[in-house]
Amino acid sequence: MAGSIFGKQFSISTWGESHGKAIGAVVDGCPAGILLENEDIQKLLDRRKPGVSPFATPRKEEDIVDILSGTFEGKTTGTPISMLIKNRDQRSEDYDRESYRPGHADYTYDLKYGFRDYRGAGRSSGRETAARVAGGAVAKKFLAVLGVDVRAYTYSIGNVAVTNPDFSITNHLNMPDETAYNQAAQLAEQAKQAEDSLGGEIMCEIFNIPAGIGEPVFSKLEAIIAQAVLSIGAVKGIAFGAGFDAAKMNGSKHNDIMYMPACRTGRENGAVKKRSNNAGGVYGGISDGSTIFFKAAVKPTSSIGQTQDTINNRHENIKLTISGRHDPLIVPRAVVVVEAMAALSIADLILQGLSANVETVKRAFFR
Amino acid sequence: MAGSIFGKQFSISTWGESHGKAIGAVVDGCPAGILLENEDIQKLLDRRKPGVSPFATPRKEEDIVDILSGTFEGKTTGTPISMLIKNRDQRSEDYDRESYRPGHADYTYDLKYGFRDYRGAGRSSGRETAARVAGGAVAKKFLAVLGVDVRAYTYSIGNVAVTNPDFSITNHLNMPDETAYNQAAQLAEQAKQAEDSLGGEIMCEIFNIPAGIGEPVFSKLEAIIAQAVLSIGAVKGIAFGAGFDAAKMNGSKHNDIMYMPACRTGRENGAVKKRSNNAGGVYGGISDGSTIFFKAAVKPTSSIGQTQDTINNRHENIKLTISGRHDPLIVPRAVVVVEAMAALSIADLILQGLSANVETVKRAFFR
Amino acid sequence: MAGSIFGKQFSISTWGESHGKAIGAVVDGCPAGILLENEDIQKLLDRRKPGVSPFATPRKEEDIVDILSGTFEGKTTGTPISMLIKNRDQRSEDYDRESYRPGHADYTYDLKYGFRDYRGAGRSSGRETAARVAGGAVAKKFLAVLGVDVRAYTYSIGNVAVTNPDFSITNHLNMPDETAYNQAAQLAEQAKQAEDSLGGEIMCEIFNIPAGIGEPVFSKLEAIIAQAVLSIGAVKGIAFGAGFDAAKMNGSKHNDIMYMPACRTGRENGAVKKRSNNAGGVYGGISDGSTIFFKAAVKPTSSIGQTQDTINNRHENIKLTISGRHDPLIVPRAVVVVEAMAALSIADLILQGLSANVETVKRAFFR
Amino acid sequence: MAGSIFGKQFSISTWGESHGKAIGAVVDGCPAGILLENEDIQKLLDRRKPGVSPFATPRKEEDIVDILSGTFEGKTTGTPISMLIKNRDQRSEDYDRESYRPGHADYTYDLKYGFRDYRGAGRSSGRETAARVAGGAVAKKFLAVLGVDVRAYTYSIGNVAVTNPDFSITNHLNMPDETAYNQAAQLAEQAKQAEDSLGGEIMCEIFNIPAGIGEPVFSKLEAIIAQAVLSIGAVKGIAFGAGFDAAKMNGSKHNDIMYMPACRTGRENGAVKKRSNNAGGVYGGISDGSTIFFKAAVKPTSSIGQTQDTINNRHENIKLTISGRHDPLIVPRAVVVVEAMAALSIADLILQGLSANVETVKRAFFR
Repeated sequence: MAGSIFGKQFSISTWGESHGKAIGAVVDGCPAGILLENEDIQKLLDRRKPGVSPFATPRKEEDIVDILSGTFEGKTTGTPISMLIKNRDQRSEDYDRESYRPGHADYTYDLKYGFRDYRGAGRSSGRETAARVAGGAVAKKFLAVLGVDVRAYTYSIGNVAVTNPDFSITNHLNMPDETAYNQAAQLAEQAKQAEDSLGGEIMCEIFNIPAGIGEPVFSKLEAIIAQAVLSIGAVKGIAFGAGFDAAKMNGSKHNDIMYMPACRTGRENGAVKKRSNNAGGVYGGISDGSTIFFKAAVKPTSSIGQTQDTINNRHENIKLTISGRHDPLIVPRAVVVVEAMAALSIADLILQGLSANVETVKRAFFR
Repeated sequence: MAGSIFGKQFSISTWGESHGKAIGAVVDGCPAGILLENEDIQKLLDRRKPGVSPFATPRKEEDIVDILSGTFEGKTTGTPISMLIKNRDQRSEDYDRESYRPGHADYTYDLKYGFRDYRGAGRSSGRETAARVAGGAVAKKFLAVLGVDVRAYTYSIGNVAVTNPDFSITNHLNMPDETAYNQAAQLAEQAKQAEDSLGGEIMCEIFNIPAGIGEPVFSKLEAIIAQAVLSIGAVKGIAFGAGFDAAKMNGSKHNDIMYMPACRTGRENGAVKKRSNNAGGVYGGISDGSTIFFKAAVKPTSSIGQTQDTINNRHENIKLTISGRHDPLIVPRAVVVVEAMAALSIADLILQGLSANVETVKRAFFR
Repeated sequence: MAGSIFGKQFSISTWGESHGKAIGAVVDGCPAGILLENEDIQKLLDRRKPGVSPFATPRKEEDIVDILSGTFEGKTTGTPISMLIKNRDQRSEDYDRESYRPGHADYTYDLKYGFRDYRGAGRSSGRETAARVAGGAVAKKFLAVLGVDVRAYTYSIGNVAVTNPDFSITNHLNMPDETAYNQAAQLAEQAKQAEDSLGGEIMCEIFNIPAGIGEPVFSKLEAIIAQAVLSIGAVKGIAFGAGFDAAKMNGSKHNDIMYMPACRTGRENGAVKKRSNNAGGVYGGISDGSTIFFKAAVKPTSSIGQTQDTINNRHENIKLTISGRHDPLIVPRAVVVVEAMAALSIADLILQGLSANVETVKRAFFR
Repeated sequence: MAGSIFGKQFSISTWGESHGKAIGAVVDGCPAGILLENEDIQKLLDRRKPGVSPFATPRKEEDIVDILSGTFEGKTTGTPISMLIKNRDQRSEDYDRESYRPGHADYTYDLKYGFRDYRGAGRSSGRETAARVAGGAVAKKFLAVLGVDVRAYTYSIGNVAVTNPDFSITNHLNMPDETAYNQAAQLAEQAKQAEDSLGGEIMCEIFNIPAGIGEPVFSKLEAIIAQAVLSIGAVKGIAFGAGFDAAKMNGSKHNDIMYMPACRTGRENGAVKKRSNNAGGVYGGISDGSTIFFKAAVKPTSSIGQTQDTINNRHENIKLTISGRHDPLIVPRAVVVVEAMAALSIADLILQGLSANVETVKRAFFR
């Protein structure tokens, strides 16, 4: 499918280049009967919008979404939901067709396709992620009906990390920790002055997901989310639960011990508890009913103001100064993209899982 | 597809439980005309075999593979390649049907499916990975025709890591570094004595892959490998190139600078060079012709000899002592599984990529 | 995927309802480097357009297509090609929300989804096929590069069939036979006067397709085209080559005998010939290099002007007079839809087939 | 996927050649908790078995199935069900590697793959359908839990057709009509004497399927079944309901009129009735709750005893006498294959349809 479709039962396909007429997403397989209006999508898109933070590109992308199909009288109809976002404020003169920008996909696209839409990275632009956010908004509306919630935030910028997240705190960096925010803001300001950029980590948590979600073997919950999140251009790593630290633990330490609170032993007496959640809520690729969480590593923005060495498409050594408007750090804007991809993954796995056992199938079938 | 099929053009499906009659894999989409014999598969399977190392379970799994279809007169025919591995030396009395072993999928399978094959983890057993290795062996044979090679090794055990890999070194831990091996072997011995287990990291490198492999957006090369590798039961994280360290770098440091060696400027004069490979050989999800590499985090073996607290399927608190034969560390045996999954991913992306541009299509088409 | 995506390597997804804001198609997997302009699409769309023939609905659907992505400087870029067709001239007052129109999907949609967009059949409207034609136009451009052509025509209307097709003949019924056209036009006029409708058959031929296209077993060439063509709302049957007549033949009659023309025996001396083509150019699901052909049965238009008995959504017996503007016969407009679906099927199978043998793969790979 | 996998949620993959070690099927996505034993599969396989009828090949294929995975204590576990059928009584000396048999896929396989397993048609052999029947048996067990039944029979042989099917009648031709059977048996005997073969039609009915099954647009119920049934080697056509006769009807005749029996008007008062079922139980690709039925056209067996003209792989004209043991008519044995493919299609569409509306999803989800 050439890579622009994700998901089997709840699927998203995205299309569009950064400097074409528009970008968009089509969600297929969303169940009928879910309330969905433009503003549900817009709210999430606004969280990705540039031009509002001192640490983001001053480029104006209004990103107004329009639902073109798949809803009727305010509800999803079960048919494909097509969402369109027109491109505006394009300055294609900022881009040159010859130079291969360091850290970008200019060179690899030329080699794969023979040529490329060189205006603003075209299809490989971060702009493509707006379409994912639109699709993720639909997934989040569906998950909300089931009580499932997905929430991501900036976990670290450079070497400054959140220690105690407090979600009442809001700021331009989406970093729910006052101290960390202040330090990170300073780092960001320095990077901006130096015409350089910063990377960081995004933490994502999935709340209230019931046990039993995720398909064994190749579609394990971690595997599907890993594909989803590593498909975001700037993400270079992912780790669930204790993640890479797990590699340094003993089994006796890492194993999450399940127990029944003293007064509640027995199957009818309520929820199983765990002494730890090193696995991040997933065993054998299937959720156990506790919170799922993972961290994603985001590389520093490739486009920086400094003059850099590189080559051009004639394979000559050149000096390149990228004159466009760029984000010194992409992490705060990528938070909602990670959230969207996690929501899309979970929505799909929930629908795939409806057929896991014949009792569930019968319950759904005999209406 | 309920998760047991991976790949679109070059696909593998696996089946089988650890204590059923057999396990197996079916590879569909392997091009016709590739030399393939049982021993090509067997060689890779033997690298996964338990019972040979002092650090692995003494359980005997002979894992003799039999190709049942898809080859004729020693060559692949383009039709599905079915491979069967009979199960032997099963001691199902080692397993109990009631207890939920910590760190295992017993609990989640019961909740998803209503019941489970409780003998030796059934479908969620590490034994399932033997079928992946069989499929990976076919992928490696195909890649060999194109000159592409995939090689994985034990990068770290606990907190002991390889510093300068020397591939002439072979040992039970698949750790190509004498000093690291000695330290890690000691750690492993200690864990074994303590009836505990260890985790570690696996490094995987893909050599001689041409530029242009990987599909943009959702099927980026990193995304597909991430799904493949995170679908291995014990793997909890993956990172490409500089990985999580990238999150702490500046863009000016992280960007890989391309250049032409002084004497070779110009398109006809040979290979583009890079000053670094922080991206791990992938930009915009597409290979650039340099070596692709990633690290996978492997959690410590969940089955340990120590008595542990847990619950049973009546939701009662119990003490559990697992009496089976288990690996104090799984990393050395998982190396070839990671290699297999990477090979399967690359084989599939190469075939998917044949249609990227119309010139390639014409070259293939007009024969 | 909820059914709105077709194809694996060359795929189309369609979206949109007859009376929503727009309809559209996204083609993913089209190779880069193919010339493609709006008018290439428009030309095919115009062949489907209503309002031009005396035998079609006078409803005006301008169906102006706009390519929003996937092309650059007049050529495909290998990225998704999004095409948009705005809906105009919608008179939703023509439709009522309660009645179940005979022969339509009103009842089945209500039962499947719980409610429906009742305006003009919504997603189940024939209007959805305009998006397929747009996608088919892209497929035809790709096929043209390879020299492959797909052509469909009206084979019969009611009981009047073409005997000797002459493609220099053009008429409102797309029926390339003067005598048959005159008779059929009369039938059509009668049906129109009687506020009734007519069905018919469409013949489709695929020319210049090389041997070797089609995947064995479940993706046989006939199987994929059958899915594609039976997915058109009004089509109720398909038959390849001798089709249902084959069921009445002896094997000695049906078998297509291959031979070498007298002067050309031997592999280097040119094309294999056949004494007949009862198989319609496909053996074992794979093309043999001769013309592929099939017939599709099209039911009479369900919407007729006569008052009909039916029920409403309260399950009451009612009389229904459908007041909208409808086609007395849909066959002539469906011709291009069949052609589009056949082109999409063949384009996908050609791309899938690039990996059939390792020599082809090597030829494509080592560029 | 190279064509050997069918289905999205309930999928089957088949593998194996007629003269290799074995053939088999893997069913993935079958819900857990369904009773399934070897004999459930065997019963269906025996209906396909050759060597029992005077009109079928005397070749002995015992076709003993062995379930290797996916069941535990007599029930499906939700994991892949692998079924193996060993090949026996292979006489590969009956086959030659050079000649292209008329009506067979020898020539097309050679052109597609470069060479082929020439023993007994290899992968393109009708023997592959035994694996489908095994998969279909699993689908039928699942459908039985939901009360859905699929039944096929020989509708016609040559020009002799069933007029009033009486299912208490059983015979070697699976033709539930005494008169028709007697005539057809005579035809078959004549064909056998003449070393010739016969084709025919198979009727298939799906009973007790609820309304709402089938996905709109490309996965319409007819489209999926059409792919499934046209993927059977000998089938060249399919038609639903009135089929090709619909093409000759007026809309006023073809439209199926729904009504409520006099005493039952109103939604709570029971089943909607129809005056006809020309659509074969499907509208807009979705079932309406009435019986679904279709006819498939089966070409005469390609292998006949008569000496035929053909070419060989050096492109020389030759005379060929096929010496193997063959069926003078394949229709009676293909009946159960059609039934299996229909069952697999319906099982998959039922599972896909579980997510159609959010109320169904909630019912399945909140357990």
